[in-house]
Amino acid sequence: MARPDGHLEEEKVFKDPVHRYIHVRDELIWELIAAREFQRLRRIRQLGTTYLTFHGAEHSRFTHSLGVYEIMRRMVENLEKKMTWDPDERLVCLAAALLHDIGHGPFSHSFEKVFQTDHEEWTQAIITGDSEVNAVLSRMGEDFAGRVADVIAKTYDNKLIVSLISSQIDADRMDYLLRDAFYTGVSYGQFDMERLLRVMRPEEDQAVFKHSGMHAVEDYILSRYQMYWQVYFHPVTRSAEVILSRILNRARELLEENYEFRQQPVHFVSLFNATMTLEDYVRLDESIIFYYFQEWVKETDPILSDLCTRFMDRHLFKYVECDPSQQMLIWPELQELFRKIGLHPSYYLVIDSSSDLPYDFYRPGEKDERMPIHLQMPDGSLRELSRESDIVEAISGKKRTDHKLYFPADLLEDQTTFAEEKQRILTLLHQQEGS
Amino acid sequence: MARPDGHLEEEKVFKDPVHRYIHVRDELIWELIAAREFQRLRRIRQLGTTYLTFHGAEHSRFTHSLGVYEIMRRMVENLEKKMTWDPDERLVCLAAALLHDIGHGPFSHSFEKVFQTDHEEWTQAIITGDSEVNAVLSRMGEDFAGRVADVIAKTYDNKLIVSLISSQIDADRMDYLLRDAFYTGVSYGQFDMERLLRVMRPEEDQAVFKHSGMHAVEDYILSRYQMYWQVYFHPVTRSAEVILSRILNRARELLEENYEFRQQPVHFVSLFNATMTLEDYVRLDESIIFYYFQEWVKETDPILSDLCTRFMDRHLFKYVECDPSQQMLIWPELQELFRKIGLHPSYYLVIDSSSDLPYDFYRPGEKDERMPIHLQMPDGSLRELSRESDIVEAISGKKRTDHKLYFPADLLEDQTTFAEEKQRILTLLHQQEGS
Amino acid sequence: MARPDGHLEEEKVFKDPVHRYIHVRDELIWELIAAREFQRLRRIRQLGTTYLTFHGAEHSRFTHSLGVYEIMRRMVENLEKKMTWDPDERLVCLAAALLHDIGHGPFSHSFEKVFQTDHEEWTQAIITGDSEVNAVLSRMGEDFAGRVADVIAKTYDNKLIVSLISSQIDADRMDYLLRDAFYTGVSYGQFDMERLLRVMRPEEDQAVFKHSGMHAVEDYILSRYQMYWQVYFHPVTRSAEVILSRILNRARELLEENYEFRQQPVHFVSLFNATMTLEDYVRLDESIIFYYFQEWVKETDPILSDLCTRFMDRHLFKYVECDPSQQMLIWPELQELFRKIGLHPSYYLVIDSSSDLPYDFYRPGEKDERMPIHLQMPDGSLRELSRESDIVEAISGKKRTDHKLYFPADLLEDQTTFAEEKQRILTLLHQQEGS
Amino acid sequence: MARPDGHLEEEKVFKDPVHRYIHVRDELIWELIAAREFQRLRRIRQLGTTYLTFHGAEHSRFTHSLGVYEIMRRMVENLEKKMTWDPDERLVCLAAALLHDIGHGPFSHSFEKVFQTDHEEWTQAIITGDSEVNAVLSRMGEDFAGRVADVIAKTYDNKLIVSLISSQIDADRMDYLLRDAFYTGVSYGQFDMERLLRVMRPEEDQAVFKHSGMHAVEDYILSRYQMYWQVYFHPVTRSAEVILSRILNRARELLEENYEFRQQPVHFVSLFNATMTLEDYVRLDESIIFYYFQEWVKETDPILSDLCTRFMDRHLFKYVECDPSQQMLIWPELQELFRKIGLHPSYYLVIDSSSDLPYDFYRPGEKDERMPIHLQMPDGSLRELSRESDIVEAISGKKRTDHKLYFPADLLEDQTTFAEEKQRILTLLHQQEGS
Repeated sequence: MARPDGHLEEEKVFKDPVHRYIHVRDELIWELIAAREFQRLRRIRQLGTTYLTFHGAEHSRFTHSLGVYEIMRRMVENLEKKMTWDPDERLVCLAAALLHDIGHGPFSHSFEKVFQTDHEEWTQAIITGDSEVNAVLSRMGEDFAGRVADVIAKTYDNKLIVSLISSQIDADRMDYLLRDAFYTGVSYGQFDMERLLRVMRPEEDQAVFKHSGMHAVEDYILSRYQMYWQVYFHPVTRSAEVILSRILNRARELLEENYEFRQQPVHFVSLFNATMTLEDYVRLDESIIFYYFQEWVKETDPILSDLCTRFMDRHLFKYVECDPSQQMLIWPELQELFRKIGLHPSYYLVIDSSSDLPYDFYRPGEKDERMPIHLQMPDGSLRELSRESDIVEAISGKKRTDHKLYFPADLLEDQTTFAEEKQRILTLLHQQEGS
Repeated sequence: MARPDGHLEEEKVFKDPVHRYIHVRDELIWELIAAREFQRLRRIRQLGTTYLTFHGAEHSRFTHSLGVYEIMRRMVENLEKKMTWDPDERLVCLAAALLHDIGHGPFSHSFEKVFQTDHEEWTQAIITGDSEVNAVLSRMGEDFAGRVADVIAKTYDNKLIVSLISSQIDADRMDYLLRDAFYTGVSYGQFDMERLLRVMRPEEDQAVFKHSGMHAVEDYILSRYQMYWQVYFHPVTRSAEVILSRILNRARELLEENYEFRQQPVHFVSLFNATMTLEDYVRLDESIIFYYFQEWVKETDPILSDLCTRFMDRHLFKYVECDPSQQMLIWPELQELFRKIGLHPSYYLVIDSSSDLPYDFYRPGEKDERMPIHLQMPDGSLRELSRESDIVEAISGKKRTDHKLYFPADLLEDQTTFAEEKQRILTLLHQQEGS
Repeated sequence: MARPDGHLEEEKVFKDPVHRYIHVRDELIWELIAAREFQRLRRIRQLGTTYLTFHGAEHSRFTHSLGVYEIMRRMVENLEKKMTWDPDERLVCLAAALLHDIGHGPFSHSFEKVFQTDHEEWTQAIITGDSEVNAVLSRMGEDFAGRVADVIAKTYDNKLIVSLISSQIDADRMDYLLRDAFYTGVSYGQFDMERLLRVMRPEEDQAVFKHSGMHAVEDYILSRYQMYWQVYFHPVTRSAEVILSRILNRARELLEENYEFRQQPVHFVSLFNATMTLEDYVRLDESIIFYYFQEWVKETDPILSDLCTRFMDRHLFKYVECDPSQQMLIWPELQELFRKIGLHPSYYLVIDSSSDLPYDFYRPGEKDERMPIHLQMPDGSLRELSRESDIVEAISGKKRTDHKLYFPADLLEDQTTFAEEKQRILTLLHQQEGS
Repeated sequence: MARPDGHLEEEKVFKDPVHRYIHVRDELIWELIAAREFQRLRRIRQLGTTYLTFHGAEHSRFTHSLGVYEIMRRMVENLEKKMTWDPDERLVCLAAALLHDIGHGPFSHSFEKVFQTDHEEWTQAIITGDSEVNAVLSRMGEDFAGRVADVIAKTYDNKLIVSLISSQIDADRMDYLLRDAFYTGVSYGQFDMERLLRVMRPEEDQAVFKHSGMHAVEDYILSRYQMYWQVYFHPVTRSAEVILSRILNRARELLEENYEFRQQPVHFVSLFNATMTLEDYVRLDESIIFYYFQEWVKETDPILSDLCTRFMDRHLFKYVECDPSQQMLIWPELQELFRKIGLHPSYYLVIDSSSDLPYDFYRPGEKDERMPIHLQMPDGSLRELSRESDIVEAISGKKRTDHKLYFPADLLEDQTTFAEEKQRILTLLHQQEGS
């Protein structure tokens, strides 16, 4: 029941363990949350395979999306004390925050690598295409859905709004750092969000931060840095992702080879051959994946069956550090040895690389150039963060990369026939690591 | 890698958001966690449909089971300061704590009602039958698995151990109150577990609590009371459960009627006809359920399709309070009216009753008699809790029941043809509630 | 720097560990906080002698007063969504919340008992008399200070405002339960304040609570109940208070006897003879008390010296339970025995009684009648809390009293001359307790 | 009541808001806590004047000392799993942790600067001299007190023990970071102590950290860094310290000039003339300071009276940034101008400098050389932390200094006679800052 101004008769709240309460005052937001494409996010975990490392991290993109919305709501409440704008812009902001991840599929990270799909394109498709979400948005006016989509695509003309939802310090990141820290139980993701929001100041093309709040910004940057290496790039999580992507690869390969599946991958075929419709896509969720993987455990193809068993029962690959410069020397021999002992190297000997650039200042012309964070000095002028903060300066622009080599240590161990090859493999792996 | 005493070379830890860390020192525990039947608990939510009310409550029985184990580990550590026992008993205790929920299936509550299955029987079957869990347990000795099963079945001869895992204040309840409060974000489930553990004292047939810790026990009882009515019996959660059980009923009915399913319920057939094997059962998890429900959205049977859509998209039933004494008067007419407007009352007009007895003292001879909580007085004698605590005495033995009538308010509202019947229905529902 | 509307140019915040931030927008509040009578509250502990039991409880009335102000600020923000009033009323409300404890002296509880002073009278005196606080208030208009004083005295004509600051559920209690739980480290004082504030509704003569928030109210009542018996009435805290009041009594007695003090109690003389001025009173703080007690350790009067040493070094009295009905029988003999072994019973044998009425419904005509808590039912009618809540009903109107007998167990133990008397004393004390 | 092995009959616990519980099992520790010199720490705030900036920071050195003891107890419990040592060493360790701050006086920082006293010397004096603490320690054996004193003085031969209590990562720092963050309410001081303790490994001359725990160590270093600049060096806190030290200076000066005090500084005289006895020192606490300051408000000396009023009522000095290179140019003129308008520059124009070196690797031969933190690599070798951690490397060895100029802005503002001088002063101060 909404009033003519689009406000609900009575504010609704959701109990949230991270932000205590999520407040909904606008009928628009209430109806977007009820849309089936949004409800579907309950069946997609926020952190993919991370729950296999940090068992508490079972939270969905649904909870994260509500959280981003709530932070944006508070941001807007604060910023509106310092500026005025069209009330419509506020709703565009809130809707974009809520819907920014709507196009995510299950285990997106792996899916995107294997199928060259892009969740951002699906986000656009859901918002502007034939969907319940679009129907709700369109009630606000003809161009409303398009504006929301533009904000998420970063092409919206109000760059301030874009910066609130995707920049180096935005509502999305604030929620996921706090939320992922909460659910995993690690202490790294803590920072003083309330203070950050209070020192935010609207500028024409981005939100900046009062200089007096610099340490809160530093703390946020450091939290982010720690979360990447402690949680997001955890090697066990990556092991599960390696297996997941090999399963998808194997299924596609088998399909191309006209292998006769016990359980045909009907839900994926259109993905495999890039003819997936919006309707198909929206039906994809983690239960579909788990359903197939569980069925495929019983397939006759030993690789597919083994990989699916590993994923379902958490029998993951082990890993060693891996120095890419050594790779050319050792690699061909290792692959050869794996083949010899009956382990297909495309599936059982996999390098995974993770890299992160914790913060970057402005590098004009570079690919992936990023809008830096600016501080508002007491005299009103702006200064880029790393020029004021020693500690941010220290990590600024420094990309860190980590390579690991994954393989099924259990199968090597069980190996009895090829004792010599096994020994040589272990020596090579050790060499990799030791170097 | 374990040492001859069964201890791991190095203690393993899991980061847990509720207990900070879960410590594993015994190879036995490490291997039980790795067993596929235990890993499967990751795909079964601890609180069933509660995530549709409290969005944060997406945690699995896997995390809860680890938590119960950890509390038991700490309990045992404390109790061992006050008594000695066979080291084997300690392992029986820990294994029983870890495995006490191993037989749970997806949305057990609803499944058990519809299919007359019993997760406790499946727990026994997994522990003593042909399973990875049993294989691990059996390495400890021939009768070890049986002893663990007996503890869970409450038939074990060491009643102290039984009381630690199932009594009115046990490791299971302590974990779920703390954990469910944590994930839902409510403040009710808090109590001082550390103090409770410290004031526990082993007696022959149960653990008792030092009198000086009475207030911590009171706090636990009150937490439990609040959690039941604020979280576990939340009417929205029950609405989803009502729909879930109607789906299962409908599917069984259709199967009996030889309805031609687009997607045959192959995973359930053996459940429907009570021929389910352990192998079948272990494959059941929530992804299977969601898979079917999503497929059944497209069934031609309008009831099955509608109910499945409701469940997947969270279009739940509304409810009114329901006074059972009024039921006989109003019920036949209401059912008749529902039939008239085309809503099958077996599926669209459902009473759900919840009741709870927050604490009970000893009532010899009564069904469901419970072992009361005892305090150890300064002079060493024991007194039943409600004789010492005014506040526990006040709620002791008082069963509270709540009845609600669920129905699809949206379908009523959309109703245009039968305006008169609709009006009469609303009047009757209102009458129900008002009385 | 304030604007014409009395708002500060920029909102000020205080970091607070309980409420995260305390927000100050009004120049009036900012200046009241800066007033010397308010700053003085930093030198008076919120919980008197409790820090001798719970070492963390060292927080001052200053922090509590800020907290009450902040809760009131949030209450008012919520209520203003539901009603309109004169902007002045808001400031009266906030100022009264901030200043409600301004008249407290050091260890008020004990002081008031010994000297028949009343901190509420001093509160009135500071607000309406010659003080910095009064000067700040008077800038708001001639009658402003008087209105603030009336709110605190509960004589203000707007009863709604009175209820916000002193009723069975008010800003004062909410802050002290949360804050005292935080600093002592106990888990009992938790309740969902944010929810309580959201379900508050203004009625003519009090704030009521939406029925849907009943469980949050229950939780608050139970928290209060637990805090009283776990923290506020802790027997060790009462032991220190017993000693403190005996010191004050002894000093007064010695003064009356013209005992020659090493350190004359100049700061107290006017208190002893009831001629204390506001100026004198405002100078009293805990450092004055500690200064004297430390000096008096060196007095020649053995009782004063011993009691002060006990207080400074925390050599407290021990206690036994005490049944008042036994008192007449045992008491005369016990006193006689104490005298015999050289312990003056007025100082070394002390009964302390604590009693609490956790919640009460309306009892017209009774002394201390209290305004009960009301729930607003869905139909708008009001119902008294204990008629809806089983658990509140259970404790409603039930006064609980506890009597303890305090004495210096160490001196008894050290006793060598009067072995027989000592034995008899121990027997009598034991009898007391055992009965 | 203790058993022959020195263990208490029943473990005692203190409720602590930071560590939940503090566990005491040894009679020695129990009695040290009861000693009057230890109880005295309740009357000395852990963070001196910080409560005037962060109102929550009212906690005492007593609570901190218990916290350091508790962390040490847990450290020792962990380390004893990896090594064996004489049981006596354990008690030396625990006692040293508990007593490491026993020599602190009120506002030590300022006192030490003004009087060239040294709290570490007083610590030695209390432990080895005529005190209750020494009496308790001596019961453990003749050399026991000396050993405890040596650990604190860092001259003990077991360097591992010394490192646990004073190194770049020790029990003292761990407690104060966590505790000060807790009481101030800031989020910066958080790190995963439990993990740090678990990855500690004993080496001959220090405790090192397993490489897998590196990120927890990083987090600790960063927390420390943030706490120094956000809390410990907060400019408002320093303003209060500036005033405090000026008061002490003024009192000494007046004493030397034979000024006739209304309230003679009898408690300080021996400090002023460096003849203070242990007995005198132990009586010094914050209540003594506050007592004098409050009395001195009424002194005829305008400087002493004004400064004391400022301290008691929190009318602090304002500040500007201060560039030392500008100082020579501006300083003489500023001082001259202050003199002209009647503000004695020694008391009303004060530079305060704070500097911090967040972490340092080994710099042989340098003054204040510090033992660096070492990681234990998987192969057992040790590596200095900054060689493994980019982020620590970035801040390693970089001393940061901050200079501020403090002055009474209110007196300048009130200035009416010397309008020109006032203007010139403001210009110069602005210049200072702007440069």
